[in-house]
Amino acid sequence: MKTSNYKIPIEVLRHSCSHLMAAAILSLFPETKFGVGPTIENGFYYDLELKENLSFNDFSKIEKRMKRLISQNLTFEKKEITIEEAIKLFKKIKQPYKLELLNDIKKYGTTKVSEYENIKTLKHKNVNKVYIYQVGDFIDLCRGPHIKSTKDLSNISFKLTKLSGAYWRGNEKNKMLTRIYGLGFEKKEKLDEYLKKMAEAETRDHRKLGKELDLFCFSNLVGPGLPLFTPRGVIIIDELKKEIEKICSTYGFQRVMTPHLAKIKLYELSGHAEKFGKELFHVSSEQGHNFVIKPVLCPHHTQIYASQKRSYRDLPIRYMESEKQYRAEKSGEVGGLNRVYAITIEDGHSFCRTSQVKKEIKNIVKIIKEFYTSVGLWKNYWVSLSVRDYNHQENYIGDPKDWDECEKILEEVSKEMKLNAKKIEGEAALYGPKLDFMFEDSMGKEIQIPTVQLDFATPKRFNLVYTNEIGKEDFVVMVHRAILGSYERFLALLIEHYAGAFPLWLSPVQVYITPVGKAHHLTTKKITQELKEYGIRIKTDLSNETISYKVRKAEKQKIPYILIIGDKEMKGRYLNVRARGNKIEQLTKKQFIEKILKEIKTKKLS
Amino acid sequence: MKTSNYKIPIEVLRHSCSHLMAAAILSLFPETKFGVGPTIENGFYYDLELKENLSFNDFSKIEKRMKRLISQNLTFEKKEITIEEAIKLFKKIKQPYKLELLNDIKKYGTTKVSEYENIKTLKHKNVNKVYIYQVGDFIDLCRGPHIKSTKDLSNISFKLTKLSGAYWRGNEKNKMLTRIYGLGFEKKEKLDEYLKKMAEAETRDHRKLGKELDLFCFSNLVGPGLPLFTPRGVIIIDELKKEIEKICSTYGFQRVMTPHLAKIKLYELSGHAEKFGKELFHVSSEQGHNFVIKPVLCPHHTQIYASQKRSYRDLPIRYMESEKQYRAEKSGEVGGLNRVYAITIEDGHSFCRTSQVKKEIKNIVKIIKEFYTSVGLWKNYWVSLSVRDYNHQENYIGDPKDWDECEKILEEVSKEMKLNAKKIEGEAALYGPKLDFMFEDSMGKEIQIPTVQLDFATPKRFNLVYTNEIGKEDFVVMVHRAILGSYERFLALLIEHYAGAFPLWLSPVQVYITPVGKAHHLTTKKITQELKEYGIRIKTDLSNETISYKVRKAEKQKIPYILIIGDKEMKGRYLNVRARGNKIEQLTKKQFIEKILKEIKTKKLS
Repeated sequence: MKTSNYKIPIEVLRHSCSHLMAAAILSLFPETKFGVGPTIENGFYYDLELKENLSFNDFSKIEKRMKRLISQNLTFEKKEITIEEAIKLFKKIKQPYKLELLNDIKKYGTTKVSEYENIKTLKHKNVNKVYIYQVGDFIDLCRGPHIKSTKDLSNISFKLTKLSGAYWRGNEKNKMLTRIYGLGFEKKEKLDEYLKKMAEAETRDHRKLGKELDLFCFSNLVGPGLPLFTPRGVIIIDELKKEIEKICSTYGFQRVMTPHLAKIKLYELSGHAEKFGKELFHVSSEQGHNFVIKPVLCPHHTQIYASQKRSYRDLPIRYMESEKQYRAEKSGEVGGLNRVYAITIEDGHSFCRTSQVKKEIKNIVKIIKEFYTSVGLWKNYWVSLSVRDYNHQENYIGDPKDWDECEKILEEVSKEMKLNAKKIEGEAALYGPKLDFMFEDSMGKEIQIPTVQLDFATPKRFNLVYTNEIGKEDFVVMVHRAILGSYERFLALLIEHYAGAFPLWLSPVQVYITPVGKAHHLTTKKITQELKEYGIRIKTDLSNETISYKVRKAEKQKIPYILIIGDKEMKGRYLNVRARGNKIEQLTKKQFIEKILKEIKTKKLS
Repeated sequence: MKTSNYKIPIEVLRHSCSHLMAAAILSLFPETKFGVGPTIENGFYYDLELKENLSFNDFSKIEKRMKRLISQNLTFEKKEITIEEAIKLFKKIKQPYKLELLNDIKKYGTTKVSEYENIKTLKHKNVNKVYIYQVGDFIDLCRGPHIKSTKDLSNISFKLTKLSGAYWRGNEKNKMLTRIYGLGFEKKEKLDEYLKKMAEAETRDHRKLGKELDLFCFSNLVGPGLPLFTPRGVIIIDELKKEIEKICSTYGFQRVMTPHLAKIKLYELSGHAEKFGKELFHVSSEQGHNFVIKPVLCPHHTQIYASQKRSYRDLPIRYMESEKQYRAEKSGEVGGLNRVYAITIEDGHSFCRTSQVKKEIKNIVKIIKEFYTSVGLWKNYWVSLSVRDYNHQENYIGDPKDWDECEKILEEVSKEMKLNAKKIEGEAALYGPKLDFMFEDSMGKEIQIPTVQLDFATPKRFNLVYTNEIGKEDFVVMVHRAILGSYERFLALLIEHYAGAFPLWLSPVQVYITPVGKAHHLTTKKITQELKEYGIRIKTDLSNETISYKVRKAEKQKIPYILIIGDKEMKGRYLNVRARGNKIEQLTKKQFIEKILKEIKTKKLS
């Protein structure tokens, strides 16, 4: 069989690229010890222990060597040998990491030992034979499959892209190895397209833009995972908060305010103590206090509901709160705004009767639609109607009848509101079915944030009741809803989605104004004052820098409008309004103010 | 010397009342063991161990017995005896608490042993003799002075008022004794006046009104000291927050947002770790994290300042934040909203040059004036210009020259702004002098909240610098300011100040509307909708209760305006507007809406 006769799956090609890279590295740096080198999305990597200090500059050398190996048309030689032979072989070629894997296979029948909490629960599977692959001088313990010969890679476009540290077997107690990432595509155009996309993503990276636009910062003294939001970042967060609270309040949500601490008992009752386990932050004092920091907001809201007797006439009762919750993520995993300890959640709960559930859900779907429209994300969405795994109904809390009823309600809502929902079995929450909304950002990345979840279990755990028409107590149903999720993640998302060029209503600085010279200071200040009175966020720059320098600075800050005040503007009727993207318009001051106020009010997208 | 010839100080009379009460109790309950019985503001108390379960009902019996003892004209017999004699005596009359005190005097020369952290540092003072006082059968270990005879108490108006538990010697490891409080005044009118004031204070008590008006609640599962604010409470807090942030933003304060956790290192540097010590909440996780919860907001704000290079052109930079901080108060001391673990602080800091300090302070004083005017407290105020204790300048951080300069600035500001400031030596903060503002609430209680403090030390500790005109780095000055202090205390203060009848702009429900019958539902709903569109907070009650019941309910909720919609309102031009205090006005809907909007806008006080 000639290799050219069948289409080799891209994963196989990428995996073979990883072996090829290893072979190239071995021939360049013969003392390299090899960890593992799997295929990943869009490419591959290999973990190595190197004697040399590798840098990006070595990438071209390795790539060149890889190409030379391809041109040599080397075979990928596969052999089945006994474990003992393999151990002998890898001892001989001095590959300690491969040896460790082999010893695990010998002992436990698997290399995935670390995935087992307790080694004793691991059922031993006898493995006598293993496969090895050789290409050039490089021999790997590998199940394959691989290509027949390096020639099969001649049409592959690959590129080494990234260097990072990675603990051997993902365990921070182990040695830190060097991980080299590569991309691999069947066509050069695809690689180029992907590289372009990556470059674009990099310029949009919220960590980079967040710093450049001065939206948030971190402090070594405060600690990682604990972002501090600067005045500009707070403006964006605050506008989002005002918008979501405005929408929610028209649907009857009322703000509550709860502390960050509670007795552990609260979370033992709610089930969150068990659910979050190690991720709980425990609080103590020398005075003998013992609390935990809230990992979620729901249990606090139940306590406000429970603070008064409720009648059927009071229902639904809807609470919302934008507040920080804290989760003890592994310290190695926090970074940027996407993984933090301090998570500012926009959370909300409806307490209602079963007969009110449908309307509640519809209202929440309307809120989601209104809010995501206002930020320009209500398109290309789809909805997951997340229901039980019907084969394992025992895994869920609550009465199957309630579940049937509520899954039915969600289905009806989906149809009546034309949500194009897909029913996904096994995706329900522990305590009830839900609707999950997915969007695509401007880079085509899928975002899953809003969710509406039904919950019968919590009201029972906390005895959340109301008195019905005949004076008897009934349990309420709790509807959990998230709209924008966490402000940290949402800000990161928006920064990347807009590439930092926020629409006017969200822009921390909406107008940048600067005079040409001293003579124009007074007019500049007057215009500033007037715009401020309309609530427009204006930055006035009276410094002596050149106009072109200042315009560049304002453009880099992605400020929507730039006004330069010179003789013409001072004496004439018109202002030169420079919009983002360098579009210049002649407007009277009145026209300019009206234009801005309209764009803010309509939440015009840039 | 006849007792009537000189005026006996009220404190002596009150202290003698306490002995008199003890004598009365002893004759009624002979097995009572006595702790201590000092004079306090407006009266006295005695701590007792009783065999009987005492209740309020016993108070009149005790008072009666006290009056009988007065009429018997018993002498207060004073004797000086040796410690050994005293020990023998109190052993004989079986008073173990008195014996414990005597043994302390014998051993340490004082009874105030518990005030010494380390008993070893206590310098022993030889005491050989002690005084005892006897009235009736009651013998007390006491330094006096006392009256000569119970007859001297014949014109005193006293009243037993309160029963509470109190640990022996204030130590929670000791036995809980019963404390009986009494009031004592020279004139009946004064006692009556005081009792009236107390009754009024009780009806205004924020804990009582907070529950009745549904402004906040506590939960056993969350824990004491951790208030949860209900929708109505949040409305008040939010209006206050909007008001203060509006005023502050016109003076250039910008909002920032910081997490509740930080490494302990941050507070070691700032000095707060030492200052708060046992009151710090420590945070840990099973993943190995270690943080503390912020006890103050200042250090976080320094980190935002420090996150960028600053030029003299950027100054002043002003941050504000309304956020929770946590302090581990002793669990026995938390209660209501005045002593809590979770304290929502409205905090702010200016970072400026020395030459800008004066203007900053003036602006902050203006903010204080504007804000306290809006809540109706800007009257009967005085200002403490809190400066160093000049005899102990070594107790303060920073250069005495800076101190001289800044105390001068504060003095100038006080004069120029006609603040009637009193210079109070020794009241400065550790790191700088300050202006403290004192007000009186409607009950005449002094409130000390707003403060402006200069701080040279913190910028040096955190290296907070800016580049000056000649390109050199200078330290900034930090100006701390508190306006409303903590939202919890401020809410408690306002509830009691207004007796729950909040001015319209702060009222959670501004208008209560209810139809007379079914026929008026539609009109009621229409008016509701219209008022809502103007942003008016309206509560619509469509229940079937009687009108008088509903009006009483709304009045109890202290809702500013009540509208009852009947035939007349449905058909006629006028609404019957019932204002708080039962003033009824005939207004067209338009007039009513205009009236309300104006009252809200002008923050009219009720």
